[in-house]
Order: sequence, then structure tokens, then C-alpha cells
Amino acid sequence: MDADSAVSAAREYFLNLQSLICERLAAVDGAAQFSLEQIDNPQGGLSQPRVLAAGAHIEKAAVQFTHSIGDSLPPAATARNPHLAGNRFQATAISLIVHPCNPHAPTTHMNLRFFVVEAEQPVWYFGGGYDLTPFYPRSEDIVHWHRTAAAAAGEHYPALKKHCDEYFYLPHRQECRGVGGLFFDDWSEGGFDASFDFTRRIGDSFLPAYQPLLEKRIHEPYSDAQRDFQLYRRGRYAEFNLAIDRGTQYGMQSGRRIESVLASLPPLVRWEYNYQPEPGSAEHQLTDYYLQPRDWLAEAEGTAVDNSGD
Amino acid sequence: MDADSAVSAAREYFLNLQSLICERLAAVDGAAQFSLEQIDNPQGGLSQPRVLAAGAHIEKAAVQFTHSIGDSLPPAATARNPHLAGNRFQATAISLIVHPCNPHAPTTHMNLRFFVVEAEQPVWYFGGGYDLTPFYPRSEDIVHWHRTAAAAAGEHYPALKKHCDEYFYLPHRQECRGVGGLFFDDWSEGGFDASFDFTRRIGDSFLPAYQPLLEKRIHEPYSDAQRDFQLYRRGRYAEFNLAIDRGTQYGMQSGRRIESVLASLPPLVRWEYNYQPEPGSAEHQLTDYYLQPRDWLAEAEGTAVDNSGD
Repeated sequence: MDADSAVSAAREYFLNLQSLICERLAAVDGAAQFSLEQIDNPQGGLSQPRVLAAGAHIEKAAVQFTHSIGDSLPPAATARNPHLAGNRFQATAISLIVHPCNPHAPTTHMNLRFFVVEAEQPVWYFGGGYDLTPFYPRSEDIVHWHRTAAAAAGEHYPALKKHCDEYFYLPHRQECRGVGGLFFDDWSEGGFDASFDFTRRIGDSFLPAYQPLLEKRIHEPYSDAQRDFQLYRRGRYAEFNLAIDRGTQYGMQSGRRIESVLASLPPLVRWEYNYQPEPGSAEHQLTDYYLQPRDWLAEAEGTAVDNSGD
Repeated sequence: MDADSAVSAAREYFLNLQSLICERLAAVDGAAQFSLEQIDNPQGGLSQPRVLAAGAHIEKAAVQFTHSIGDSLPPAATARNPHLAGNRFQATAISLIVHPCNPHAPTTHMNLRFFVVEAEQPVWYFGGGYDLTPFYPRSEDIVHWHRTAAAAAGEHYPALKKHCDEYFYLPHRQECRGVGGLFFDDWSEGGFDASFDFTRRIGDSFLPAYQPLLEKRIHEPYSDAQRDFQLYRRGRYAEFNLAIDRGTQYGMQSGRRIESVLASLPPLVRWEYNYQPEPGSAEHQLTDYYLQPRDWLAEAEGTAVDNSGD
């Protein structure tokens, strides 16, 4: 594998995916457009953050492309391959977050990345995934989301779903961030071509997984109380991103452009001391039922072992 | 010094200070009252969080008292005194935060704590301080705040002010959180009686430092744009508390009651991608002038060396 042509291929795919996602989200919104900034990175890389704010249906969406090039890999970054320290390396990625206005429409996050250290035998991996954070979930939406994810990830779906449930978890609340999805890392299974195919299958499945849910739910009526609950639950998102997420913490400490690192934060957030939802309410069901790790596909097919206690 | 009577004395002072502060803040608000919860801690301690929410002028205030007792000091907690590992220890503290509604009224935070490890020669210290976070600062308010702090801390003011500026700093934004105040830690100067006196002087000076600013500014008219800017700047507060503050991080990891640990978070927060205030505007002056560490007292007396570049 040639590092430069691998990076070029991943970069082209991520840029095209960014265009497609921005085009589709803007079309769903129908009012606001994505900004387009291009920021040259040192040594020839590029950051291309695109943000849509204050739309008719999308309160904030950030879809970011980055390609960064480093002259010398830090020793700490390569404990498993100490002989690579000091080598040239490249990383390219797409990452996105969507915060809809309507509390019936779920928030989502996706990212895909490719990393390579140049060497006679280049060391490289893919990583990424996507997850869904509803406020007023519908089981049918979650099943559609996981079915689409499972079709993309194939035999790897159970492992990637489990990894996702484990990663997007708030230990201080003992709560999952959302209803999960896919998460993979250090992925080089089957060699470059197979891994890149796998990454593309996941990337290509994001819009089919998310867009129907967004289109369906943005037109539902909602009350002020439901909007308040959405803002309250966005507090969990901010807690996760600022206090738990390793990617955000690395970004904050590494001196990367801070507006890009924190572009995922919700546009409006509410914290309320000691809020406790009414037992049996939709708000209570969110944490009591939906945000527990579940085998959504087995449940949909009626093959699940019910251990929810309901 | 007897550990139990030292804890009793600190505890009584902190509880009385909590009462007084809640009474005064509720009187300034004029509409809402503080809740009163009492939660028994294991081994005889007490947590007493008091929260006022959705007041006429105070959007949220949390004034918390805690007394906790531990059977066995963890070795990690006492690197400097390894012979104390396994000893009984006690901690008692008051901590508060005030988020006013009006963007012209500054947010504030205060805490005081006493920690003691029981032993033939007990090991103990005081710590704490207070700091001010304005959105539309007035120099006269900041000078009053620092004059009151300086009168309380006496000869230690310069060191405690510097410590405060250094602690309440957001490295990822290269910004101070506010205009500073006092911060001290590991304090046992002059023995228990002198240290306790010093701590009380600081505690007693909090209301004289803050209350006049609150009373003066809560009646000022403000625009929607100013309110928006306040919510935006509260984002910095949330970033600091969740991603930077060692106390909050310790609280989140230690399994302490999470609603108490995160009671300091603002009631409503806004994030806006790549917001840049107009050069020369009040919003620009906040970060460009007021949130730079300054010698406010020397400036007020016209004795400062001007190195601000203005």
C-alpha cells in the first residue's frame, strides 16, 4: 500500500460524502444553507468545516472535513510500534453532528477517519461510526436505524454495536448517551481495500439510516414542555462531549482550532437541579427503557429474551 | 489541636454562613426561596444542598454545605505523608454559585473547605476563595470586589489573587474565566486558630463583596442581544466546570451525588459556532480588556504601569 494514494482515496471519499450530506441536510431544512470555510493546515493539509445554524428544522449541524499532515510522529502516539516514532504521518476524517429543532427528531453524530504512518511498511487504520440520541424515541425509528447499521456492518454489527454502547456512556450519570449504533477503531481487517470498502459501506449507510427519521419527525407538533425536556437532555450531550469524550479532550489539549473541536456542542442547553421525570411519563421512559443497551433487532423480530423487567 | 473540635468549629461556621448567604440572596431576589435538603452521609456526615431556581432576579443559585467522614484515607490522597494512609479523615465545606438573570449582574462562585486527617499530630488544612464572572463588566464593580477581597486577605492578597487568575483559566480558549478574586489551598499558616480566622475573614467578606454588585445591576435594562451574549458566555462557564475544573472532575469520578457536583452548571447556555464580537463593542472589550489578568487596585489608584497596549 502506498500511503499517499491511500490518503488521496480516503480524502476524496470523505470530501464527497461531506458534500452529499450537506446537500441533503440543507434540502431537508429547506431554509438555511451550510457555510463553507477552507483553512489550510501546515504541511499541505486542509480543514473544511461546514456549519448550518438557525435553520427552519435544523437548529445546528456541523459537518467537518479535515486532512492533517505531521512531520514527526510523537513517541506517545505509537507505543505499539516504537520504531515509527519520528516518521511522517497523515490523518483525514469526516465528522458531523445534527441538532434538530424538534424534540421528536433525534440528534445524531457520525465520524469516519483514516490514519497512516509512512514507512517501508506503512502502518494505518480506519475508525469511526455513528450513533443516535433521541429525546422522545419511537421504537420503529430505532429499529430502522439499527437495521440500516446492521446491513452496512454485516457480520461485524454485534461487535460494533457493543463498542458503541460502551463508548457513548456517561459513568457519572450511569446512562447511555443515546440508543447506540456503530463504533469501530484500529480497523485494518482484510487489508486496505477491504477496510476502505467496509468504511465506505458504513459512510454510505448514514444518510439512509438518519434522513428518513429526520424527515418524518421534524413536522410533528410539540409542546413547550417537550422542548424544555430536549434542552435539558442536551445537557447530557454537553457533559459527555466536554467531560468524557476522549476525542474532544484530545482536541482541546492539542491546540487544534477550538471552534472546530467544539462545533458539536448543542446550540441551546438547559440544566435543572435534581430534575426527576414523572414515573411512567415519556420522559421517564427515555432513561428507564430506551437508553438501556438493548438488542433492538432481536426485539423487533420477537426473538429477544425479555430481561427489562417490564 | 483536636480534630473533632476543629471540624465542629469549621462546620458550625460554614453552616451559619450558608444560612446567612441564602437569607440575603433570597431577600435580594424577593420572589423565590431556597430549597432545603438534608442528606445523611455515611459515618455521620451531612450534605445540605440549598438551591434557588427561576427567581425574579436570580436564575439559579446553589449554596451547598457538606461534611463527610472517611474511615480510611486512600494512599493516593497523602503522597506527602505516607504514614497517614488508612487513618480516619473528615472534610467539611461550603460552596456556592449564583447565576443572575440580568446580563449586567455578574455570576459568582465561592467555596471554603477544611480537611483533617486524624492522628496523634492531626494533619489539616483550609482552602477556598471566590471569583467573579461578569458579562458586561464595570470597572468600579471590579475594583469594589477586589478592594473587599484585599481587605479580607491582607498581606496575602497578591498571592491569592495570582493563584485565582491562574486557576480559573481556560487553556483551550486562552481566556480567564472572569476577573478573578481569591484562591488559597493547603492553608495552615500560623496554626489552626490563625488559619481559621483567615478563612472566616474571607468567608465574611463574600457578601460585602458581591451583594452590592448584585443589588445595583439586577435592575438595569437589557436587550435580547445582551441576554444572548450572557447565555453564550455561560458556555465558557460550562466548559470550565466540565472540562477543566479539578474539583468537578474529582466529584464526577468519585461517585459523589451527581446533582450536587453539577449544581453549579448554568440554567441556560448557548453555543454559537465561531462567534466573533464586533471590534470595539462591549462584547469585544470583555475578552480584550476585562478578562486579562490586571492589577485592578493599582489601576484604580492610578499607580499601575500600563502594559495593556491600549
